[in-house]
Amino acid sequence: MNFGSDNFAGAHPDIAANLSAHATGYAVPYGTSNFDQAVQQRLGEVFERPLTAFYVATGTAANSLALTSVAKPGGVVLAHHEAHIIVDECGAPEYLSGQLRMVPVDGPDGKMDIAALRRQAERIARLDVHGGRLSAISVTQPTESGTVYSLEELDAISAIAKQYNVPLHMDGARFANGLVSVGCRPADMTWKRGVDILSFGGTKNGCWCAEAVILFDPAKAHEFSFIQKRAAQLFSKSRFVSAQFEAYLRDELWLKLALHANRTAADLAAVLDRSGSARLLRRPQTNEVFAVLKKRLVEELELAQVVFSEWPVSPDLRLSNDEQLCRFVTSFATRDEDLTRFGDLIN
Amino acid sequence: MNFGSDNFAGAHPDIAANLSAHATGYAVPYGTSNFDQAVQQRLGEVFERPLTAFYVATGTAANSLALTSVAKPGGVVLAHHEAHIIVDECGAPEYLSGQLRMVPVDGPDGKMDIAALRRQAERIARLDVHGGRLSAISVTQPTESGTVYSLEELDAISAIAKQYNVPLHMDGARFANGLVSVGCRPADMTWKRGVDILSFGGTKNGCWCAEAVILFDPAKAHEFSFIQKRAAQLFSKSRFVSAQFEAYLRDELWLKLALHANRTAADLAAVLDRSGSARLLRRPQTNEVFAVLKKRLVEELELAQVVFSEWPVSPDLRLSNDEQLCRFVTSFATRDEDLTRFGDLIN
Amino acid sequence: MNFGSDNFAGAHPDIAANLSAHATGYAVPYGTSNFDQAVQQRLGEVFERPLTAFYVATGTAANSLALTSVAKPGGVVLAHHEAHIIVDECGAPEYLSGQLRMVPVDGPDGKMDIAALRRQAERIARLDVHGGRLSAISVTQPTESGTVYSLEELDAISAIAKQYNVPLHMDGARFANGLVSVGCRPADMTWKRGVDILSFGGTKNGCWCAEAVILFDPAKAHEFSFIQKRAAQLFSKSRFVSAQFEAYLRDELWLKLALHANRTAADLAAVLDRSGSARLLRRPQTNEVFAVLKKRLVEELELAQVVFSEWPVSPDLRLSNDEQLCRFVTSFATRDEDLTRFGDLIN
Amino acid sequence: MNFGSDNFAGAHPDIAANLSAHATGYAVPYGTSNFDQAVQQRLGEVFERPLTAFYVATGTAANSLALTSVAKPGGVVLAHHEAHIIVDECGAPEYLSGQLRMVPVDGPDGKMDIAALRRQAERIARLDVHGGRLSAISVTQPTESGTVYSLEELDAISAIAKQYNVPLHMDGARFANGLVSVGCRPADMTWKRGVDILSFGGTKNGCWCAEAVILFDPAKAHEFSFIQKRAAQLFSKSRFVSAQFEAYLRDELWLKLALHANRTAADLAAVLDRSGSARLLRRPQTNEVFAVLKKRLVEELELAQVVFSEWPVSPDLRLSNDEQLCRFVTSFATRDEDLTRFGDLIN
Repeated sequence: MNFGSDNFAGAHPDIAANLSAHATGYAVPYGTSNFDQAVQQRLGEVFERPLTAFYVATGTAANSLALTSVAKPGGVVLAHHEAHIIVDECGAPEYLSGQLRMVPVDGPDGKMDIAALRRQAERIARLDVHGGRLSAISVTQPTESGTVYSLEELDAISAIAKQYNVPLHMDGARFANGLVSVGCRPADMTWKRGVDILSFGGTKNGCWCAEAVILFDPAKAHEFSFIQKRAAQLFSKSRFVSAQFEAYLRDELWLKLALHANRTAADLAAVLDRSGSARLLRRPQTNEVFAVLKKRLVEELELAQVVFSEWPVSPDLRLSNDEQLCRFVTSFATRDEDLTRFGDLIN
Repeated sequence: MNFGSDNFAGAHPDIAANLSAHATGYAVPYGTSNFDQAVQQRLGEVFERPLTAFYVATGTAANSLALTSVAKPGGVVLAHHEAHIIVDECGAPEYLSGQLRMVPVDGPDGKMDIAALRRQAERIARLDVHGGRLSAISVTQPTESGTVYSLEELDAISAIAKQYNVPLHMDGARFANGLVSVGCRPADMTWKRGVDILSFGGTKNGCWCAEAVILFDPAKAHEFSFIQKRAAQLFSKSRFVSAQFEAYLRDELWLKLALHANRTAADLAAVLDRSGSARLLRRPQTNEVFAVLKKRLVEELELAQVVFSEWPVSPDLRLSNDEQLCRFVTSFATRDEDLTRFGDLIN
Repeated sequence: MNFGSDNFAGAHPDIAANLSAHATGYAVPYGTSNFDQAVQQRLGEVFERPLTAFYVATGTAANSLALTSVAKPGGVVLAHHEAHIIVDECGAPEYLSGQLRMVPVDGPDGKMDIAALRRQAERIARLDVHGGRLSAISVTQPTESGTVYSLEELDAISAIAKQYNVPLHMDGARFANGLVSVGCRPADMTWKRGVDILSFGGTKNGCWCAEAVILFDPAKAHEFSFIQKRAAQLFSKSRFVSAQFEAYLRDELWLKLALHANRTAADLAAVLDRSGSARLLRRPQTNEVFAVLKKRLVEELELAQVVFSEWPVSPDLRLSNDEQLCRFVTSFATRDEDLTRFGDLIN
Repeated sequence: MNFGSDNFAGAHPDIAANLSAHATGYAVPYGTSNFDQAVQQRLGEVFERPLTAFYVATGTAANSLALTSVAKPGGVVLAHHEAHIIVDECGAPEYLSGQLRMVPVDGPDGKMDIAALRRQAERIARLDVHGGRLSAISVTQPTESGTVYSLEELDAISAIAKQYNVPLHMDGARFANGLVSVGCRPADMTWKRGVDILSFGGTKNGCWCAEAVILFDPAKAHEFSFIQKRAAQLFSKSRFVSAQFEAYLRDELWLKLALHANRTAADLAAVLDRSGSARLLRRPQTNEVFAVLKKRLVEELELAQVVFSEWPVSPDLRLSNDEQLCRFVTSFATRDEDLTRFGDLIN
């Protein structure tokens, strides 16, 4: 039983099968084949507008190159202090952009507080050449805390980006999980909200390796093609990503997988909530469950070889000595029988 | 019929099948699972010594990060003027290393002339802080011209690297094709020759996306792990590469595929040579055939939808007006019937 | 009357005169002349040990290249949240190091709280490849708040650097002002405390342009020479800096100038303190005075063409509506008659 | 007697005096004072158009930041193979631009052959994302060989830049020496010829440290101000450069100094030419003399403590065993009596 992370799972059978199906025959490499173009077309249909998608190796690459493409000398990026670009990318955005600085914005539940974001943007706008200037705002949807921004919140963030004339980037490493949680169409959560660049992740939701930088302004594509190649992120046999995305988007598979992951997370949360040995940090909105467990329960679960993560505690969370903050992540691969067994273990 | 490049082909069925076989179950991500470790172990057996292998997205990434790991401030890298790192990587080595400069070395048949290499190394060793200093020597095996360095030539290059106290990098994007051409063991062509870092490519020889930086000195691994992650090249579901390499190395599949590609290149060269309408630039040593074709033949082949490349002509090659330099690349996917049909077309 | 900053002043007459005195004759450029070497020797005497000093154009350059010289891939630098490298350098340390991230440490009076520093170092030491690793600790002496670390505090910071095996950098843009405030010898405040690299600034204390990176380990000098030149910071007519430092260090001029600046700051603070219209944020330890002024007084001073800075207010400082935080900086050029007139204006 | 280089000299007395004259009083730092603006205005008069000038520490900085300001991802710069940016800057342009590659263009006498430049531009224009794209053309005036491009040649180079839609940069480290050699107004040799960005050097012609990046399009100034600060090249006491430029440009001092240097070089060349022991590589057009000397003469001069440089020999120059290529550089500081004594030594 594994709730370690959604990248502990492998690939969904339909995606694996489609990759095998595309193993034969010849195709022009580097994203330019008819098949690559067709999948790009398909992404445009899904997002209901012309767009350009660049495949990259990792979510870190998607975020870093998205920000690189809008980096100004002296530029800073505003993002929540738990954002992947700040916490989990080993400095890749700074390195690949050549110098961007990430400025953290506070806010509960993994989400930037709108007022705090505005204050930071205002503060930075007053800086001179010594302080630097705003280069972009980056929003993670869903967040690292498994929560989602509402469409209204995205509008408010976008308004700040527009006011300060900088692009809005969305880190959508778990885009599908957020989308089905908000319950809207892809366009509604992205460009219709003012998102300019999207890191569109498929890996955590059932693909092997399917991450794309989506530019909603195709006029930026030519420039980005050099940014991608220069960063050593241009796959030769690009169809191996196209084949994954083709299956991923076919018959709404991606939404079904995300719904499954989110639903099993809700079930897992309910199990924890009912037990006397855990308290939820919050009701999960996507596929990540954060809960404070009695250490005794943590040990029992580990003994039963349940895989999950002990999570770093933020200063404002008060734990007693016998408690432990933990994270459980479900995925397309989580089985109902896992949940049943998990329930049995806990109760 | 497609001789466009070996990355126009898809994946070998055994490799595709193994990837599917590993799609189920859970594994720790980021290259640290038991399975990842087992494949790493396997690579060590193949190379007959302990080593560390880091998977990256592309051959460009492998080369660029290998060189980054040995970059000195003010450093320059010596490589043949046709080398991929100079000609085909959009400045990725300069960009990812933060500043390395590539200094071209001349030599016929895609190979650095040993005396020219020595002269350049001597010249650079005399430079002061304004000129810079030597950081690495990079050798491509097999070369961009489809030729191979003999073990003696590798020894001579290695001796220069040792003399000037810089590491020797090998770009092995088509390593297997070179290996079976030289006809030795992997160790003989690499660390026993003084190679410190190897870009080990599987993609062009039947994998989807399987490129690794191999460090023959495991003490360098800790440092490299940060270089890899910082460059956004750390795959989460690393088993999707491990599964490819597992199948690739099993029962000498990789050598068989390379032998097939080299053999079909030799056959294709023979067909061209026999025709009155083409002259070989040289007898192919691996899976690339360079030949000067009558333009009339070029048109006929293109009309018959044979895919191949018109190739840029170096200044020292004299062509008449009705001639065209062309490149034909075979691969694991080249079929004997393709060659038969190719022969029919030509004769 | 000008308390805008210590870089609003020009150059001390002795320093200007010495520069003129060295205008004639020939000297080998790029820091290698006998005269350059003699001044370097003199710096060694001042610091009571062999050292290597590299002249650079600005304090920003000194800090950025010092940190670049110890940057690890994925590395982070700990510094006070008001540090110049975080607040005032437009991303130069990130840019020139190629990727370092600055992690702010809290603490009152512009000084890192030792416990907070230790917590951050501990936290970072537990990070994996995604989070990064500690690359250096940077301490500003005197601080941006005009305070100084005691020798005991420097020892405590140094102990943390040693514990986590990273170098300790000191930003000494106003080194002399700090030194005479602490009241010790240069060695006592630097390498004897465990400082590995010093940004040694003379510009703010009476030079035109005299900033040096001082390496207390001469074995690092060869490497640094490439870092300096690569960053376009190697002056050709280096004697124009040597001549300034020669005069600066002669007959303890630098200490006298710093004592004067610190003393006039104390006088200015006393004037403010005595007035009923201002309250000092703290008693100045060097040449910067921070005080909360009645807005009416601010207006009067500005009307009288007194130059000083309105200063951004940190969240924990409560001001009433008719108050304004201000900074006054004295320098070698501040005259006693300025202070008299300032006193007259205020009372 | 010193012909080592024009940066072996110190500063012209008028320039030193003006620097001292500006040592007193207060001025806003960072290039924004009235005095700084007045000198900028003066530069605009000299060049007969509005412009923006940014002071930087070195000629290397001027070149590198000029190119950084026009760098495209994947970009390459065309310049003569002897250009300072290729040969003498330790990779600073690659480093500071984050990735630019310098592509050498051949041509005799230190000047790019126009046809060779066009061929390279055409070749690069045909490259795809793997090869990169043209980012700028850089022309050195006068060249590293002491020669000058005629206005017609500059027009031809500029036409190529326009055709390929890239900016034209001029490295004018010895701008005045070139200007008086061509015998035209500053505007005629720069923006009227299509030069977009100029590295304007005063250091080699009698200043201490006076280098500026001049943008002929003031609309680019805002962006450049961040590029300058981020690179740690924003002097605080900027008047120390303004004061040098003020004196430099006053009463045509800069042109007089350059004329003197060029004339003494011509005299020195004549002395060498007349001797039986030397042959000129070419008649000097500015202040650098390249000549092949009998080794016996080299030894005699060195014995007499004449300072000059033994120069690396390009492959196409044939020397006999008893010959040595040498470079002699004159400057504002060269005295007629030096030349007389030099003549006596030789004859």
